[in-house]
Amino acid sequence: MSESSEKSRIEAFSDGVFAIAITLLVLELKVPQADDPKTLWQEILRLWPSLVALTLSFGSILVMWMNHHNMFRMIDKVSRSMMFANGFLLFTVIIIPFPTALLAEYLRSEARQPAVVVFCASSVLNNVGFNLLWNSMLKPVYLVKPEFKRDSILRLTRSVRGGLIVYTIAALVAIWSPIMALIINFSLWVLWISMSLRERF
Amino acid sequence: MSESSEKSRIEAFSDGVFAIAITLLVLELKVPQADDPKTLWQEILRLWPSLVALTLSFGSILVMWMNHHNMFRMIDKVSRSMMFANGFLLFTVIIIPFPTALLAEYLRSEARQPAVVVFCASSVLNNVGFNLLWNSMLKPVYLVKPEFKRDSILRLTRSVRGGLIVYTIAALVAIWSPIMALIINFSLWVLWISMSLRERF
Amino acid sequence: MSESSEKSRIEAFSDGVFAIAITLLVLELKVPQADDPKTLWQEILRLWPSLVALTLSFGSILVMWMNHHNMFRMIDKVSRSMMFANGFLLFTVIIIPFPTALLAEYLRSEARQPAVVVFCASSVLNNVGFNLLWNSMLKPVYLVKPEFKRDSILRLTRSVRGGLIVYTIAALVAIWSPIMALIINFSLWVLWISMSLRERF
Amino acid sequence: MSESSEKSRIEAFSDGVFAIAITLLVLELKVPQADDPKTLWQEILRLWPSLVALTLSFGSILVMWMNHHNMFRMIDKVSRSMMFANGFLLFTVIIIPFPTALLAEYLRSEARQPAVVVFCASSVLNNVGFNLLWNSMLKPVYLVKPEFKRDSILRLTRSVRGGLIVYTIAALVAIWSPIMALIINFSLWVLWISMSLRERF
Repeated sequence: MSESSEKSRIEAFSDGVFAIAITLLVLELKVPQADDPKTLWQEILRLWPSLVALTLSFGSILVMWMNHHNMFRMIDKVSRSMMFANGFLLFTVIIIPFPTALLAEYLRSEARQPAVVVFCASSVLNNVGFNLLWNSMLKPVYLVKPEFKRDSILRLTRSVRGGLIVYTIAALVAIWSPIMALIINFSLWVLWISMSLRERF
Repeated sequence: MSESSEKSRIEAFSDGVFAIAITLLVLELKVPQADDPKTLWQEILRLWPSLVALTLSFGSILVMWMNHHNMFRMIDKVSRSMMFANGFLLFTVIIIPFPTALLAEYLRSEARQPAVVVFCASSVLNNVGFNLLWNSMLKPVYLVKPEFKRDSILRLTRSVRGGLIVYTIAALVAIWSPIMALIINFSLWVLWISMSLRERF
Repeated sequence: MSESSEKSRIEAFSDGVFAIAITLLVLELKVPQADDPKTLWQEILRLWPSLVALTLSFGSILVMWMNHHNMFRMIDKVSRSMMFANGFLLFTVIIIPFPTALLAEYLRSEARQPAVVVFCASSVLNNVGFNLLWNSMLKPVYLVKPEFKRDSILRLTRSVRGGLIVYTIAALVAIWSPIMALIINFSLWVLWISMSLRERF
Repeated sequence: MSESSEKSRIEAFSDGVFAIAITLLVLELKVPQADDPKTLWQEILRLWPSLVALTLSFGSILVMWMNHHNMFRMIDKVSRSMMFANGFLLFTVIIIPFPTALLAEYLRSEARQPAVVVFCASSVLNNVGFNLLWNSMLKPVYLVKPEFKRDSILRLTRSVRGGLIVYTIAALVAIWSPIMALIINFSLWVLWISMSLRERF
């Protein structure tokens, strides 16, 4: 009982941080100035990179929240090192809006490469966070509920390790070919979402 | 038990997002500069479009939160597709402050039409979100508690479908007659609030 | 059980809104520009009105949160009209940072009067909110737990009514004598805090 | 039961405030303007003080949250004076981003001294907050669960008192030797984190 209230408090704090990170880019949508309908339409349309950034950032943080939720429903205890790992993961989450806004701003520009590299690097960092969190749930204290069997543990381990490898490759590819790196990134997303929707927990 | 903790975490995350979206426009209320009482009164009065936007946005997001709350009290399980639908709905909620601020800024201006169209379109998007969320509670997994009978389900279905149709009509009307579109929108609100207050759950 | 989860969700949403409102004025503390220690000290000291505003706003919203908490611990059911009243109260809470910042900015200026009037008016609005919330807990549906007896109900009723009357007088006084109005306001705070600390619930 | 719901509401509100404070400095990461990859890289690298500030502020607020969490898991009741003490502590938490950003901005500048003094003073204030909170859990009402024995109470008391003394010394040292003060501060952090990781609760 005490243990489960410990766990809910970590979840509540994490949910608060996720909720703020996911809404942060809304602040970029500023009401434009215009004197007639035509100019106002043009000004609204010029907001598209902000809207793309908001959508991308919202989508990816939502997926991160779902993964976080997924890991936490497997445990019923907490440990000090898990709290640090969770803290690091949350750090990688709150910075997501910045590289996403950078990507949306520079995607169609000559200066695309740094934006894509930073974007891919932030994905790598986030995947490092999920790997550390998952590790901290397995040791030094094993926090996973007994009902979760060895093979579902292994499947999740393989999935977080695999994600880290592919995102690291994408980040390296980004240095030479930004577009190719983005294709790898978004393929992974489509794959993950379609896999998720098939599962029915 | 585990299922109900799943559900409370989705609610907690959603509540965080609603709480941020509902307070966002407060940031627009900036302390004005003035040297004497008369000028300060004038500067404070010039903030009225921001105050109208804040009130409208607060009111509509509060109503959305109540509808969300209403749907969630009918279920006791969660599903992956419901989590995606809920994510989409939250996205349509966090963007509400932007079209509302746009509307408040341009309501009395020549450039009114784009602002009203965008405002009505955001209402349509939000109603699409509520329809998707409600669908995802009925299938592929039926999440509704057995105590809710067929006719209360049907009533809610009819209400979300009806809302979507009327808001879509309002958005189309907005292209030719912005004022008429706003009248339709606000009539729906008054209707909904008066109906809500009569119910005693 | 279902009823109490309803109640906790309203509390969670309200807590989120309170948490955002209470931290909002931190955004006004911007890192100043300076080239040597002496100038930097001067620039830091020039931030004092922002710091005063932050402290005042934090203090008063904390007190509001405690009053809200106090009312909610007396009920174990929810009603639709209580949800509307709670929504209105939250609205009066999120605007608090604005009049407080206005007050801190203009307290020592010639243009003091409008700032004090707006500040006192926002207190009145907030007290109207607490009165509506408390009314909505007594009727149309009586939501208070049976363990709370008639005299504690009456005491709370008298206290919210009394607060509204005194704050309204302060707001009217503010039009002619801003300083006198502030003295009334802060006396009430000191009274309330000293009374609270004597209680031991 | 009622008591424990009182406690969870204070935790939920505190978690919301912590979550906002911890993400606040993300708002400083603004997308820079550039026309070619090289300039964009330079502009991104110029964001380093903001990134250092964000990391420091995130790290220290995370540690504060863990300490807060640690104290609250020892109690199962609430008192009015504990709520005031908790409010004061939260106030010292939300201002952390400001001195941290100040430190990051002026660390390599001539004007370092005021920034370090303010940073150390904010640590002192925060430690005062933790001392007041812990005191308020011991008296006037003793809120600690009976399962926590005299020696773990004493250990925590000694730890919060010791922290306050060392941080106060660091703040005084900062007036003459900013660098020495920072070394004291960060040594305490490293000590605390390494001690925490050894514990396995």
